[in-house]
Amino acid sequence: MTEPTAIGKGLAVSSRRRFLREASALVGGVVVANGLPSSAASAATENTNNLPPSVPEWMKTPGAPMGSQLYGAPSPFEKDVIKNISKDLPQYLSASGRTPLQDLDGIITPNGLFYERHHGGVPSIDPAQHRLMLHGLVDRPLIFTMDDLRRFPSQSRIHFLECSGNPAYTKPFGKTASDLVGLLSCAEWTGVSLKLVLQEAGLQAGAKWVVAEGADAAALTRSIPIEKCLDDAMLAYSQNGERLRPQQGYPLRLLLPGFEGNMNVKWLRRLHVTAEPAYSREETSKYTDLMPDGTSREFTFYMEAKSIITKPSGGQRLTTPGFHEITGIAWSGHGKIKRVDVSVDDGKSWQEAQLQEPILTRALTRFRLPWHWDGQPAVIQSRAIDETGYVQPTLAELLGARGENSFYHNNAIWPWRIASDGEVTNAAA
Amino acid sequence: MTEPTAIGKGLAVSSRRRFLREASALVGGVVVANGLPSSAASAATENTNNLPPSVPEWMKTPGAPMGSQLYGAPSPFEKDVIKNISKDLPQYLSASGRTPLQDLDGIITPNGLFYERHHGGVPSIDPAQHRLMLHGLVDRPLIFTMDDLRRFPSQSRIHFLECSGNPAYTKPFGKTASDLVGLLSCAEWTGVSLKLVLQEAGLQAGAKWVVAEGADAAALTRSIPIEKCLDDAMLAYSQNGERLRPQQGYPLRLLLPGFEGNMNVKWLRRLHVTAEPAYSREETSKYTDLMPDGTSREFTFYMEAKSIITKPSGGQRLTTPGFHEITGIAWSGHGKIKRVDVSVDDGKSWQEAQLQEPILTRALTRFRLPWHWDGQPAVIQSRAIDETGYVQPTLAELLGARGENSFYHNNAIWPWRIASDGEVTNAAA
Repeated sequence: MTEPTAIGKGLAVSSRRRFLREASALVGGVVVANGLPSSAASAATENTNNLPPSVPEWMKTPGAPMGSQLYGAPSPFEKDVIKNISKDLPQYLSASGRTPLQDLDGIITPNGLFYERHHGGVPSIDPAQHRLMLHGLVDRPLIFTMDDLRRFPSQSRIHFLECSGNPAYTKPFGKTASDLVGLLSCAEWTGVSLKLVLQEAGLQAGAKWVVAEGADAAALTRSIPIEKCLDDAMLAYSQNGERLRPQQGYPLRLLLPGFEGNMNVKWLRRLHVTAEPAYSREETSKYTDLMPDGTSREFTFYMEAKSIITKPSGGQRLTTPGFHEITGIAWSGHGKIKRVDVSVDDGKSWQEAQLQEPILTRALTRFRLPWHWDGQPAVIQSRAIDETGYVQPTLAELLGARGENSFYHNNAIWPWRIASDGEVTNAAA
Repeated sequence: MTEPTAIGKGLAVSSRRRFLREASALVGGVVVANGLPSSAASAATENTNNLPPSVPEWMKTPGAPMGSQLYGAPSPFEKDVIKNISKDLPQYLSASGRTPLQDLDGIITPNGLFYERHHGGVPSIDPAQHRLMLHGLVDRPLIFTMDDLRRFPSQSRIHFLECSGNPAYTKPFGKTASDLVGLLSCAEWTGVSLKLVLQEAGLQAGAKWVVAEGADAAALTRSIPIEKCLDDAMLAYSQNGERLRPQQGYPLRLLLPGFEGNMNVKWLRRLHVTAEPAYSREETSKYTDLMPDGTSREFTFYMEAKSIITKPSGGQRLTTPGFHEITGIAWSGHGKIKRVDVSVDDGKSWQEAQLQEPILTRALTRFRLPWHWDGQPAVIQSRAIDETGYVQPTLAELLGARGENSFYHNNAIWPWRIASDGEVTNAAA
């Protein structure tokens, strides 16, 4: 077979002409019948001889045999798609590792790239030795083994988890989508309804809070309002089908859909039912929001509606003008995403993006907008609206309301700047 | 803190009494208001002193620091949850590795445990060197780089993939759910609509088939009817957020939702648009269904509706009588699962199982049924009904229609036998 001569030649002339013709149908973001625009903008190369491709080296020898990986791993060519961990951490026991959002598609985060945030390192827990105690204002205090918990009826749901400090309110903001909001991931969780477990023990009158404690060296402790515990809270033992990863709380974590990450206590070993919150270290010295007037907002549980464009995003480069899909993720701790708007003109006008089905409550939702980049500098950004009608604010709006003392719950719209050479950078950095 | 004395003592007396009382509400499979039965059957131990748990060793020292795994891995305590590969394969280049279905929850298969089936080993492909050629009955033959394909509008969908030979029709059938139907997995796939790519090239009159070729040493080749190519076929480059694993076709595979696994050509390098099928090795000498009268069914694309109970299933053991959730997965190549029935009395009667939302087309659907095991021998099984009304058949029905020469498309109901000591075995083995 003959090597086609045109490989790598770039955007074919006829392709470019055809795109320009069809792109006119997209003015104003109008999407054609099947929900997808013609993508004649692709830089595919025309094979004018209509020849089959030459045979690459890897077809000429047998590949790796069955069983070379009994538990699989990504291709070595993807070795740079890893968790994003600061090189200059002051210490490594209370730190965070971010999901490389700009390299991911869809809404599921693979377990190997799920974000991490620890307060005393990652414990190595033998599930046969692990116990969950449920005590306090209950009729029957109980101790559960993991086998006990797996005897309960199970449930599976797809939910996001996000750290409350994702990102900070002040510079430096970082360069990539991962730098900014990479303390965010989404998985299919399986476990037991916390409500069912509480009913099993029997709640007593006056039970208003459940204090959850982790079995890590930090004994991370948070107080959960009883209403959430009796709603959609889950004692989760699996993520994306398999058992939790150690970094996500193996063998058991609390899952509080829509609540800030640290309340979803990992390595869960104790649920203490109480009349008052514990006012633990992690809900007094940390994870409160200091306001301009010197007061602190405490127990700010919910992660508000938010979105980010992941492609194109900071650190990437548009190689040629023409068709580019703008895509990203949106989420809300209050329920489903209702709409995502995208602006490609520095916020002057907005177009409604297409949302990928299924749109699930308290889960990431992938959005997409077809875009023709004319090669001129541009600023692009997205704004999420959730089913409560809440609209994702700008950073200026947030700073106006909260001042610069706040550290958590920054859900600002984030703009990316595209230079005429196609380089994408953080427009707010 | 004092060690609670009751840990590990087993089913508490009051717990057992309470379960027996509440279980009566479940006779006939009636499910209480919240969709979940009381699970007082859990073998949780009562902590009569209402004491907090003792502090385990792993809370007394710092855990592993941030960055110890830049790409994560399961806990070492899960080291036996791996792909299920026969130890005595005649050779390892055309072989299969099964997903350990009995160890998984939910519907998403983690990428590390996705099933494998190769015909010439797993090639190691540099994505920068990989090309997809589209030629034949098209106006413009095209060659795509991976970057070209990622310029197209993208789509993400959750779909199952299943090998057509899953399981065989004759003994030995294997012991576990994985042995039987472990050539089955489900992921969120992202890629480009094949329809869009074909439109880009321009289909000519008479284009009825697309012959897909893989870049492995087997050059695996299958013919796809044009109708499927213009429906929901996808050129997929990501699974569960990250790029395809090498065993699943990195950097590009064809995804034909609902079609037998081998047609979803991995390491996809060529699409040849033709008027006739290729009658390739993999659609003549293999992947046809030999009938009792000596004729062969060819081009049997669709995987029909099917289900399997994964818990309890072969190789597991019920440790005590009482409440046990029966759970499993159902799927259909023809669309959504409409209903799953479960029998706990060797097929004499059937109860409708609860289906986990979201129920997606051509994806796994998790089903559950609360069950009180009385400690007597029992045979349990599930039967799937899809949105076309098709009902999963028994093995006897399949053998009656197809004889014993058939090898592929065995979608029989599979029964598990539970002995009085709780041991679960394959009732048809």
